[in-house]
Amino acid sequence: MLVVQKYGGTSVGSTERIRVVANRVQRVVSEGHHCVVVVSAMGHSTDALVDLANELVPRADLREMDSLLSTGEQVSASLLAMRLIHLGCPAKSLTGWQAGIETEAVHGNARIAAIETATLRSLIDKGIVPIVTGFQGIADGEITTLGRGGSDTSAVALAAALSADVCEIYTDVDGVYTTDPRVVKTARKLDRVSYDEMLELANLGAQVLHPRAVENAKHFAVPLVVRSSFTEEEGTKVVAMTENRMEERHVVTGIAFERQVARIAVIGVPLEQHGLASVFSELAEHGVNVDVIVQSVVGEATVDVSFTVNEPDVERAVDIVQGLKSKLGFARVESESNLAKVSIVGAGMISNPGVAAQMFVTLRDANIFVQMVSTSEIKVSCVIPAGAVEAAVQALHHTFVDANSEVAVSAN
Amino acid sequence: MLVVQKYGGTSVGSTERIRVVANRVQRVVSEGHHCVVVVSAMGHSTDALVDLANELVPRADLREMDSLLSTGEQVSASLLAMRLIHLGCPAKSLTGWQAGIETEAVHGNARIAAIETATLRSLIDKGIVPIVTGFQGIADGEITTLGRGGSDTSAVALAAALSADVCEIYTDVDGVYTTDPRVVKTARKLDRVSYDEMLELANLGAQVLHPRAVENAKHFAVPLVVRSSFTEEEGTKVVAMTENRMEERHVVTGIAFERQVARIAVIGVPLEQHGLASVFSELAEHGVNVDVIVQSVVGEATVDVSFTVNEPDVERAVDIVQGLKSKLGFARVESESNLAKVSIVGAGMISNPGVAAQMFVTLRDANIFVQMVSTSEIKVSCVIPAGAVEAAVQALHHTFVDANSEVAVSAN
Repeated sequence: MLVVQKYGGTSVGSTERIRVVANRVQRVVSEGHHCVVVVSAMGHSTDALVDLANELVPRADLREMDSLLSTGEQVSASLLAMRLIHLGCPAKSLTGWQAGIETEAVHGNARIAAIETATLRSLIDKGIVPIVTGFQGIADGEITTLGRGGSDTSAVALAAALSADVCEIYTDVDGVYTTDPRVVKTARKLDRVSYDEMLELANLGAQVLHPRAVENAKHFAVPLVVRSSFTEEEGTKVVAMTENRMEERHVVTGIAFERQVARIAVIGVPLEQHGLASVFSELAEHGVNVDVIVQSVVGEATVDVSFTVNEPDVERAVDIVQGLKSKLGFARVESESNLAKVSIVGAGMISNPGVAAQMFVTLRDANIFVQMVSTSEIKVSCVIPAGAVEAAVQALHHTFVDANSEVAVSAN
Repeated sequence: MLVVQKYGGTSVGSTERIRVVANRVQRVVSEGHHCVVVVSAMGHSTDALVDLANELVPRADLREMDSLLSTGEQVSASLLAMRLIHLGCPAKSLTGWQAGIETEAVHGNARIAAIETATLRSLIDKGIVPIVTGFQGIADGEITTLGRGGSDTSAVALAAALSADVCEIYTDVDGVYTTDPRVVKTARKLDRVSYDEMLELANLGAQVLHPRAVENAKHFAVPLVVRSSFTEEEGTKVVAMTENRMEERHVVTGIAFERQVARIAVIGVPLEQHGLASVFSELAEHGVNVDVIVQSVVGEATVDVSFTVNEPDVERAVDIVQGLKSKLGFARVESESNLAKVSIVGAGMISNPGVAAQMFVTLRDANIFVQMVSTSEIKVSCVIPAGAVEAAVQALHHTFVDANSEVAVSAN
């Protein structure tokens, strides 16, 4: 079996942790498997490098930033390789360019274009464990990086290119939970989720796996496992929807939530102005991320557009939209901070049209006022007051997860 | 003019220091010169990486150590480049492999084999300052390092390959002194020394320039300047012997010294055993560095061999030599610790046979007992008791430097 293992920053956060990781890799190899390891930078070392850059320049050149940050993974990869060699397990650290990870010629947030696997395959064939630096690649002889969460993406891309049997993502949590266990005592680890569910959960604040990595895993059908490098727990398998649905009895897989949400409403946008396009292009150009968007027709000739942004961005976003007033001729802009978003996610929803209604009833019974609603095939999100988020998550977990737990557990 | 500037670890030891270096580079460029910069790792960052490796393994794999340590220079090069770009001075950091520095396929202590200058020349032609990581290169796609002091070697090799007009070595001292100013108050900075004198001074403990770099500078006739990045002082020029001798009036250029010396004597080695070869091959194989070697014939059929080692190596060295006793049939091994070595260095000595005698007289008058003597064309070294080293250096400085300072100063 060929296993790709990715170890995140906390998993290689100290030499003590690197020893533990080396033991784990050695065990897989001693069981007769081939192993390719992808590592992040040690603990907060990337932040320390960013701090150095910030001390020198207000806005660092992206090429130089890539060259600077890529050293973090090179350090952890070399350290892990030397520890494995010391344990008698042949290993070699490979930087992005040494591993043949070719990206677009973009700095700071490049996408992987291709992986030249000759070097990796040759090492694997010789029984040498490649320890690949995550988060980085090469384009035209220049060091590039993949942006935040890039090491997950590196691991999945390598697993796809090498047709690995499984890609294990090691982190400091032992899997994907039905919701945040700090908020709901009965939250339980999922044995499996579908790629799409994982994607919704990842995007909705369950930051165990980077969304880009999940997308790639889905696209290339790479079987993922999310698990902890701190325990021997089994973790959560992330698998294709069809495979998952076969055994699926419960409709809602998990409850995700996000704090620090603000809502902006643009009232009375004349229909003929194509207001939506202008507003969101302008926000995107200024780097403001917009999440939920709701539009409804009020009068005959105008629409109201509501959308959410991260709370710290709200003033800037309002200013940007106000700047469009004369051009678009809308009536006014309203904004509201101190909100949160709560979502139910589950592949089973597609065939259960009553799920959204059940969510609204649950929130109503808990006296929680829903201000915005947005739905996708496998998700329903509600924007609610920030103070109600814990009560909402608990109530929803009770309705959708606890009530079905007997069935769900037996299904796995 | 094309200037290669090399900044050592203390010169780029903090972001504050990197700002100062950036200003200095920018000034050279604004004066219309082309500039290629070579940097060491920041301050003690290399030691910190070595510590991490030591926490993991007793003896690190050399390939992985190279990959680990090479990140130090990559960090400082990126930081300096982004600061220069911020100042409006186009710059690009280049790792060893990006700069085309090809070395032997050896890890930990590789020699530079060739420099493929196409990338560097193209940047220079475009008015972009290449910021090259010192200490490292590439061999068959593997990251290699040049060993301690390797950044000096990188700078000199680049200066030679690019036919630079000058190679400036920036450090935390403002030049090469007649001796250590902490020992002799009247020690003064030399305006120029010859490559050979610098070589003897460097080997003898005046650690401003790595001997390998000086050797390469001499071989490729690269004009060197040693100066401080902390001041605007002129520094010391290291030039060819002939050029230097033209203006040379003083016989002794500097007084070097080294503490922590131990002497080992192998007494009564039968002549027919080729004892010298056996003893020193065996020591070299065990990694014991031998410095001064003196041999004298005592009886008709035996010789006594004396040599010095670094004090911390003495017990090990004695054990190694004792192990040869049955093979070589020598009488006994003696050793003495707590010694020092003091040397006078100067290109003018070649034509002044009385200099050694003048040194012995000076030491005798200071009541310092000389235990070993070794001479080269431009150097006389004496091994003396460690407690006498300061008195010896002061007396020799008085005899050879202070007495000639009027002449020497006017000669420059």
